[in-house]
Amino acid sequence: MAIYRQDSSAATFRPHDSPDAHSNRRPRVVVVGAGFGGLSVARSLKGRDVDVLIIDCNNYHGFWPLLYQVATAGLEPESIAYPVRAIVRKYQNIDFQMIEARGVDFEHRLVLTHREPIPYDYLVLAAGSANNYFGNDALAEQTYSLKNIDDAQQLRNHVLWSFERAVNERDPRRRAMLMTLVVVGGGPTGVELAGAFVELIRHVLQHDYPMLDVSEAQVILVEAIDQVLMPFSPKLRSKALEQLRHMGVQVRLNSVVAEVSNGRVVFKDGSAIDAGTVVWSAGVQAARLAEALDAPRARGRRVQVEPTLNLTEHPEVFVIGDMAYLEGYKKGQAYPMIAPVAVQQGKRAARNILARICGKPLHPFRYADRGIMATIGRRAAVLDAFGVKLSGYPAWLGWLFIHLMALAGFRNRVIVLINWAFNYFTYDRGVRLITGARKMVDNR
Amino acid sequence: MAIYRQDSSAATFRPHDSPDAHSNRRPRVVVVGAGFGGLSVARSLKGRDVDVLIIDCNNYHGFWPLLYQVATAGLEPESIAYPVRAIVRKYQNIDFQMIEARGVDFEHRLVLTHREPIPYDYLVLAAGSANNYFGNDALAEQTYSLKNIDDAQQLRNHVLWSFERAVNERDPRRRAMLMTLVVVGGGPTGVELAGAFVELIRHVLQHDYPMLDVSEAQVILVEAIDQVLMPFSPKLRSKALEQLRHMGVQVRLNSVVAEVSNGRVVFKDGSAIDAGTVVWSAGVQAARLAEALDAPRARGRRVQVEPTLNLTEHPEVFVIGDMAYLEGYKKGQAYPMIAPVAVQQGKRAARNILARICGKPLHPFRYADRGIMATIGRRAAVLDAFGVKLSGYPAWLGWLFIHLMALAGFRNRVIVLINWAFNYFTYDRGVRLITGARKMVDNR
Repeated sequence: MAIYRQDSSAATFRPHDSPDAHSNRRPRVVVVGAGFGGLSVARSLKGRDVDVLIIDCNNYHGFWPLLYQVATAGLEPESIAYPVRAIVRKYQNIDFQMIEARGVDFEHRLVLTHREPIPYDYLVLAAGSANNYFGNDALAEQTYSLKNIDDAQQLRNHVLWSFERAVNERDPRRRAMLMTLVVVGGGPTGVELAGAFVELIRHVLQHDYPMLDVSEAQVILVEAIDQVLMPFSPKLRSKALEQLRHMGVQVRLNSVVAEVSNGRVVFKDGSAIDAGTVVWSAGVQAARLAEALDAPRARGRRVQVEPTLNLTEHPEVFVIGDMAYLEGYKKGQAYPMIAPVAVQQGKRAARNILARICGKPLHPFRYADRGIMATIGRRAAVLDAFGVKLSGYPAWLGWLFIHLMALAGFRNRVIVLINWAFNYFTYDRGVRLITGARKMVDNR
Repeated sequence: MAIYRQDSSAATFRPHDSPDAHSNRRPRVVVVGAGFGGLSVARSLKGRDVDVLIIDCNNYHGFWPLLYQVATAGLEPESIAYPVRAIVRKYQNIDFQMIEARGVDFEHRLVLTHREPIPYDYLVLAAGSANNYFGNDALAEQTYSLKNIDDAQQLRNHVLWSFERAVNERDPRRRAMLMTLVVVGGGPTGVELAGAFVELIRHVLQHDYPMLDVSEAQVILVEAIDQVLMPFSPKLRSKALEQLRHMGVQVRLNSVVAEVSNGRVVFKDGSAIDAGTVVWSAGVQAARLAEALDAPRARGRRVQVEPTLNLTEHPEVFVIGDMAYLEGYKKGQAYPMIAPVAVQQGKRAARNILARICGKPLHPFRYADRGIMATIGRRAAVLDAFGVKLSGYPAWLGWLFIHLMALAGFRNRVIVLINWAFNYFTYDRGVRLITGARKMVDNR
């Protein structure tokens, strides 16, 4: 509905609790970010006596847990993205605008954007995360990342185009380089991506390129410490390592990347790998918006929040999900940057906003930990959920089911299910297209 | 299979019919273009005693008859594109390379590319068509086109982004402009696109943007002559016009576009329309490659061919589909630039190549005209095929069935069918995503 129209511009807007405001104006809640956290806030406020505006620089909600399948030609980007307006149009009191938030003026209660500022009574910041290069910004230029749909499409295009180029490459060293993929970071994203790349090469590209000796192709997973999938139990971690190696992923532990330039990955110990594709999934930090805030930040530029999820100095401002730093997880650690935390924090933030409006006390965030899971490949996954630890086939089935159910939109669910069935039974990947090819051919 | 490897470079290649060639070398057929024509040649040569190399600047075969549905958020791009290697890997004697052809050296029998030249014994040019701006190249800069997947995605992104911008536009004139779409050209592409845009606006965007007065939105189909869908019978043409107008498309006949600049479409008679989106589908010509050939050309830069589809001066070179100019259609006209002509010419070219190899006489091309059809919208189409003239619901069902069957790849067929069912029953469009949005927000 038309909540934020011309008449709600910053110039004419007065806070709903200011003495000169119309006494019957509904409080306005602005939610920055249409990810798991932001949508959770909005859903929890549907039909309530507040006007909600979600803003995001994309017009869709991306289901990022499946993003690695877009990058490896298993799913079309459209199947994991769902238009935000298709969600909010069902609710009278929720609106959406495609706007980029660039900062917050806490004093005047304004979200600063690439257009004019947006006034709020209550604000929820849920802008998610960005890659963390730990101060080495050259890495951002020299590696691929996997944070959004454009990233995933670029990575897919680049890997497929590298194999096309390998066909005509006579220098065996350069040919091998074109077929070498390095994934830096042994967290869930890195593990899932490395496994999916090996399957793409072994099941699909090997048949597409019979003239190439695919044994020259390598997928190398690089991890700085001595194990992969840190958040999992030691037993599941070693299961995952075993499954990865069995599939053909070369796992290189205790290897810290010092530099990447022109396809050469140089490690701290002086050794190096030449790779046509280097993907950075070694670290995340809060979205850049966090940096623009006049608020205390913790590690990974996450914004320090009260247990009630709002800022100490500005109790009408809530920060949730990957952007928020709050301790209270296992052994007093900060809550991890994962979707279930964002969803549950969204619900809590929404309830606390409603409590504040009624003058009731706020409640601290309590996390109902339902577990974690990661997929490795065909019939291979690890799952530590609901008190059960699984690996292999049963974990993989659990992973499939839970992710399918979590997808937004019936159409997307059906399309993903069909793709999965196709990929599983044919050992094929239907989406191995190189889009925007003209630019690549020209730049070659 | 590895046919064209390092050892087949131009330097070492000798024509299979030259006296010093290895007597047992198989003739090499190079096919430029993986469209309907090129794939038809390749399929007709599968398992024969020739080596075939298809080259294309994309790694997929695009099913362009459904491209307008990608542009109007009804289908994901991936569902109408099929990887060429997924087709050719089934055949031992067919290979593919992702290379752009830039010319032909007829004397030395070489295809000139963006890399090194490719030698051939027989050549089939099937590079398709490009937009025709009739000498007014400024139109190319000022309008959107619909010739490939990137075009369709750009058009989709632009239209959706225009509506997002309209929400915040206070100037009613500019707001109406953002919601005005002009489609220039009343051929099948223009008619299909205009119909699909009206449905996108009426069925989807109207609900997505309740704050916009969608009656301000206009879809205007512009045609230079006094009727749309020229190739159809007068009765079907007037049926189509009636259906278009009934759906809400404003059809403007006898209107010749003189100029488009900054969203203002100016007509020869001095009148003008302000439109946020202008699509050019008023003319096609042969692909740019035709211009680079030392061969006689006819209207629309199509290459003049013998009735046997080869060049008079170079009988080992065949030109088919949209690129070829051959009279012999109704009343001595040139064959139209449509998929069935390309497919049938591909078969004929393949047979004539095999005939030449055996020293047998070539046969002239004969077209088995199965008819034409165009869709207009939901349950609205015109069909003139197999001696039957239909319009409305039955024509639409026929159109759906024939296009679904003609799609390459089982996965694509299922995905398209599901999308169609979803679009039909929910009146929704699942793929209304704005991709690459960051650039747009920044450039605003």
